[in-house]
Amino acid sequence: MKKPFPLAKVYTLLEPGAVAMVTTALKDRANIMTMSWHTMIDFDPPLAGLVIGDQSQTFQTLKRTGECVINIPETGLLKKAVACGNVSGRTVNKFKAFGLTPVKASKVKAPLVKECPVNLECKVVHRTLANRYNFFILKIVKAWADPNKKDLRTFRHLGKGVFLAGGKKIKTSSRMK
Amino acid sequence: MKKPFPLAKVYTLLEPGAVAMVTTALKDRANIMTMSWHTMIDFDPPLAGLVIGDQSQTFQTLKRTGECVINIPETGLLKKAVACGNVSGRTVNKFKAFGLTPVKASKVKAPLVKECPVNLECKVVHRTLANRYNFFILKIVKAWADPNKKDLRTFRHLGKGVFLAGGKKIKTSSRMK
Repeated sequence: MKKPFPLAKVYTLLEPGAVAMVTTALKDRANIMTMSWHTMIDFDPPLAGLVIGDQSQTFQTLKRTGECVINIPETGLLKKAVACGNVSGRTVNKFKAFGLTPVKASKVKAPLVKECPVNLECKVVHRTLANRYNFFILKIVKAWADPNKKDLRTFRHLGKGVFLAGGKKIKTSSRMK
Repeated sequence: MKKPFPLAKVYTLLEPGAVAMVTTALKDRANIMTMSWHTMIDFDPPLAGLVIGDQSQTFQTLKRTGECVINIPETGLLKKAVACGNVSGRTVNKFKAFGLTPVKASKVKAPLVKECPVNLECKVVHRTLANRYNFFILKIVKAWADPNKKDLRTFRHLGKGVFLAGGKKIKTSSRMK
């Protein structure tokens, strides 16, 4: 039987896409942020929309540089993705702290995460909604993937540190809402 | 080994959230559209962003009325969701054609789909990106769900009619890209 559902918990009902790790770089300092709120916006040229919390270092860097990489991790990286989501890039070099490998991108200054099987190099094309909605529209200018790898074991965040992977739920120590 | 990946196929790499069925109503005529490109934008009040193809009847109605309902189907409705995505509301009354039941909503004129376990009544709050990016920002003004139902068997569209549900792939006759 359906009943009215608390509006503040609606975000747990609209299941997001695969968890992404967004990398940015300011001068020589690279950072990683774990996030779930994204959507494709157009096919070709490929455009995507990202919601990036305005308290984060990534938000500031993305506004200043207009560049990032969307990296898609598989379940083997779940613990590291959660760890990257639990601390701020202001105080921690997440590549070093969590044993992730930055690789030079071809069209942006933000690095690829080597351990992620998919890397999408992006440039911001629309930022008028950044201040009001934390929302950026990006054009994917270069994409990297393994053509022989057909099925990615991605995972999704259901809220409060519970992830869904391959039909199974996994509880983590994520501090994400 | 990662290689450059064709930009026109990037949309198959950025896995979307759960398939949604968006209902709208113009005068007494209700319509349903199946779609995947959505994201939450804020927690409370809950905001969501939707990409609605500008060739669709839903796009025109959403622009005119500023109201819709996001309905989340489970796998038992996969065939009907695909059927709703394969035809236009201009020529077909999809509720009648596919045996779906419209239920009066409480705050918008668009109907809830009774067979979907989650219904989110929405009002458009930002449409400046509708013409350029087919992108609408909505506020969820009323939500319906079964509090006793903990695990929704949602499904995701991986592209070209292949869906992912409970860790398994399902091929359908969808005409979606």
